[in-house]
Amino acid sequence: MKDLTVTEVRLTPILVADPPLLNTQGVHQPYTPRLVVEVVTAGGVTGVGETYGDTEYLETARSLAERLPGRSVTDLNGLFSLIDDVPLPGHHVDGGVDVGGLRGVRTADKLRLSVVSGFEVACLDAMGRAFDLPVHALLGGKLRDRVEYSAYLFYRWARHPEGVAGEADDWGAALDPEGIVAQARRFVRDHGFGSFKLKGGVFPPEEEIAAVRALAAAFPGRPLRLDPNGAWSVETSLEVAAELRDVLEYLEDPTSGTPAMAEVAARAGGLPLATNMCVTTFPEIAEAFTTGAVQVVLSDHHYWGGLRNTRHLAEICRAFGVGISMHSNTHLGISLAAMTHVAATVPGLRHACDTHYPWQTEDVLTERLTFTDGCVTVPDGPGLGVVLDRARLDALHRRWLADDGSLRDRDDAAAMRRADPGWTAPAVPRW
Amino acid sequence: MKDLTVTEVRLTPILVADPPLLNTQGVHQPYTPRLVVEVVTAGGVTGVGETYGDTEYLETARSLAERLPGRSVTDLNGLFSLIDDVPLPGHHVDGGVDVGGLRGVRTADKLRLSVVSGFEVACLDAMGRAFDLPVHALLGGKLRDRVEYSAYLFYRWARHPEGVAGEADDWGAALDPEGIVAQARRFVRDHGFGSFKLKGGVFPPEEEIAAVRALAAAFPGRPLRLDPNGAWSVETSLEVAAELRDVLEYLEDPTSGTPAMAEVAARAGGLPLATNMCVTTFPEIAEAFTTGAVQVVLSDHHYWGGLRNTRHLAEICRAFGVGISMHSNTHLGISLAAMTHVAATVPGLRHACDTHYPWQTEDVLTERLTFTDGCVTVPDGPGLGVVLDRARLDALHRRWLADDGSLRDRDDAAAMRRADPGWTAPAVPRW
Repeated sequence: MKDLTVTEVRLTPILVADPPLLNTQGVHQPYTPRLVVEVVTAGGVTGVGETYGDTEYLETARSLAERLPGRSVTDLNGLFSLIDDVPLPGHHVDGGVDVGGLRGVRTADKLRLSVVSGFEVACLDAMGRAFDLPVHALLGGKLRDRVEYSAYLFYRWARHPEGVAGEADDWGAALDPEGIVAQARRFVRDHGFGSFKLKGGVFPPEEEIAAVRALAAAFPGRPLRLDPNGAWSVETSLEVAAELRDVLEYLEDPTSGTPAMAEVAARAGGLPLATNMCVTTFPEIAEAFTTGAVQVVLSDHHYWGGLRNTRHLAEICRAFGVGISMHSNTHLGISLAAMTHVAATVPGLRHACDTHYPWQTEDVLTERLTFTDGCVTVPDGPGLGVVLDRARLDALHRRWLADDGSLRDRDDAAAMRRADPGWTAPAVPRW
Repeated sequence: MKDLTVTEVRLTPILVADPPLLNTQGVHQPYTPRLVVEVVTAGGVTGVGETYGDTEYLETARSLAERLPGRSVTDLNGLFSLIDDVPLPGHHVDGGVDVGGLRGVRTADKLRLSVVSGFEVACLDAMGRAFDLPVHALLGGKLRDRVEYSAYLFYRWARHPEGVAGEADDWGAALDPEGIVAQARRFVRDHGFGSFKLKGGVFPPEEEIAAVRALAAAFPGRPLRLDPNGAWSVETSLEVAAELRDVLEYLEDPTSGTPAMAEVAARAGGLPLATNMCVTTFPEIAEAFTTGAVQVVLSDHHYWGGLRNTRHLAEICRAFGVGISMHSNTHLGISLAAMTHVAATVPGLRHACDTHYPWQTEDVLTERLTFTDGCVTVPDGPGLGVVLDRARLDALHRRWLADDGSLRDRDDAAAMRRADPGWTAPAVPRW
């Protein structure tokens, strides 16, 4: 048998090109920090994982990486004990709102679990390679051969603000219903997506209602979602719900905080509410489920501490009759593969998962994952089934090294100030 | 890599000697049916599991076994899809109370999941042997090196009723506080147990209160538990709780049904309630947790569908601030090893687990598991770390073959009628 003892952990922070996608906090930076985690075993196998790359994640990951050599890649439960002993970066502050990821309130737990997730995925990849098994088999085996994703539509500019570096693309601007429908058509043409999510909270609700109505007219009967990232008051949320109840699959995080979500859910006439903001850690589940605040949890294996915790979350949801699907933030193919493996093992996955991946023009793989009819085929090769392109990884790492520090911590509000110097992330409710 | 495809499944129903242990339904039969499941792979590895052996379990297991060849032992999630297609035995009736196991209401789900558990454990054992990994490593790795068990005290007769075959033992009768304390002392002497559970519901509550008081006097400060299997009314439960609040770690299933448990929990002055009767399947969790009916769930990997579902259950409990420990019914060393592996991976396991194992004089292993200071050392060998003794298995199977059918379905009430012909299992509440 191959020796599964970890001998080395390689952490490679990178900056990945990101288009100027708008959200209620601001706009995506031209480059987003990500962290690639490689775990090398004595048996000569290397596993790869990916997670957030902002400074506090990177510093925490470095502390965890120091503690791994000598342990087995199978010791996944032990990662959670290890991370509990890792000191938090001095600049970590609990309680603020994450200005980049729109992932709800910042907590030490979320930071730690997001770091663990990159290591857990790398360890699972290594185990899979050592045993010649796909990661899904290490999670009990796939229940489906393809995982469906949703087209993730964004209001966006054609290019980053003047004077800001960045990679060009040919999508053009989308700032009104026509632009959103055109974007959706291209997603359908290129990837075959069968459902659509619009990132809202950017324009006044009536404009976003009009965009969703335009999508419903252009793609009758297709599942639609709208996600203003908690930007609305309870009353505004209820008005939007009333306007769009007949065409939405669910309304995602219309308002901020579990009590407000519970109030909207109770009065939304049966329209399901989804969240990736008020239920992002295990301790948040009880209040949300007992008050009926959410009907669908959008899991993100980064937040929740990996693929095995995602499976636990899915079973909690199932026991409480709450649906599950998956959230996405800017990510690369490593995480898309990880999401696909775990999604393939989740019983009763009835909603297409979110992914930013089609927006990412850069990756660190020799071969990008592709969507057919909106689905990713579940990889059956060893581990995650992806191969790192070291030249690409090095190039993106050099970009990170060359950065003066201004892009190493994602800050969508700061990025917006390059276009609008007076901008501050709006307080909620914004409308 | 070894070929993990299942080529053969061997099912061996056996009858295992059981002492005349009393409970509210009656008395243990002299022999209890169990089923040993062996899964053989093309790569030449055999994994072993154990579950209930009563006729409806055996028939369901036979149907499942037919469907396994050609599949991979890693396809654990698929077992649940397979079992859903297995027809239930014609004589299965939902809704009655299980007369043997005292496991709450009989349902098709519990039957199916109990059968799956034997196969899941056998598949995990096979995987572990193929990869040279202990089962706990397939569950993410152990968090502790020893798992603590509790001494499981029973009112009992010295021998089975006259005219009933059975194996003799030298325990003698225990029918009063002195007998229970003597039994506890022997458990401590032989196995070093540090906590005690008394199976109650046998005598009027005041007698069982006296027995617990005698234990508290004999073993001051040690955790004590009392389990009448739902035999009491809410008012009786509250009276017992008031009498024993100062010495009990928890009170187990004092009354029947989640609403009654919730009422007792609300009025029991902070005494925690445990259950292995009102929360035995995932759909039962939501009501019990939202009404605060139980503070500790006693998991049983047989009921819950295996070791991975036990991990999911543990995470559900953790998210809701509910404690977890483990229930036991008459079982052999295969299941004790399985319980120990999964218990070793559960974070926050703060209560010693239950086990009948010390009462079982027979086993199917070449080497029995042992308790030191009340703990089982977590096996680190491949798979479960146990070795089947085929001669012993065959001998116990021949006993099953020779039986006229009267013992093939555990029925504690029928066993009691051999001593008391007019006995019927009492309706609840009995007191």
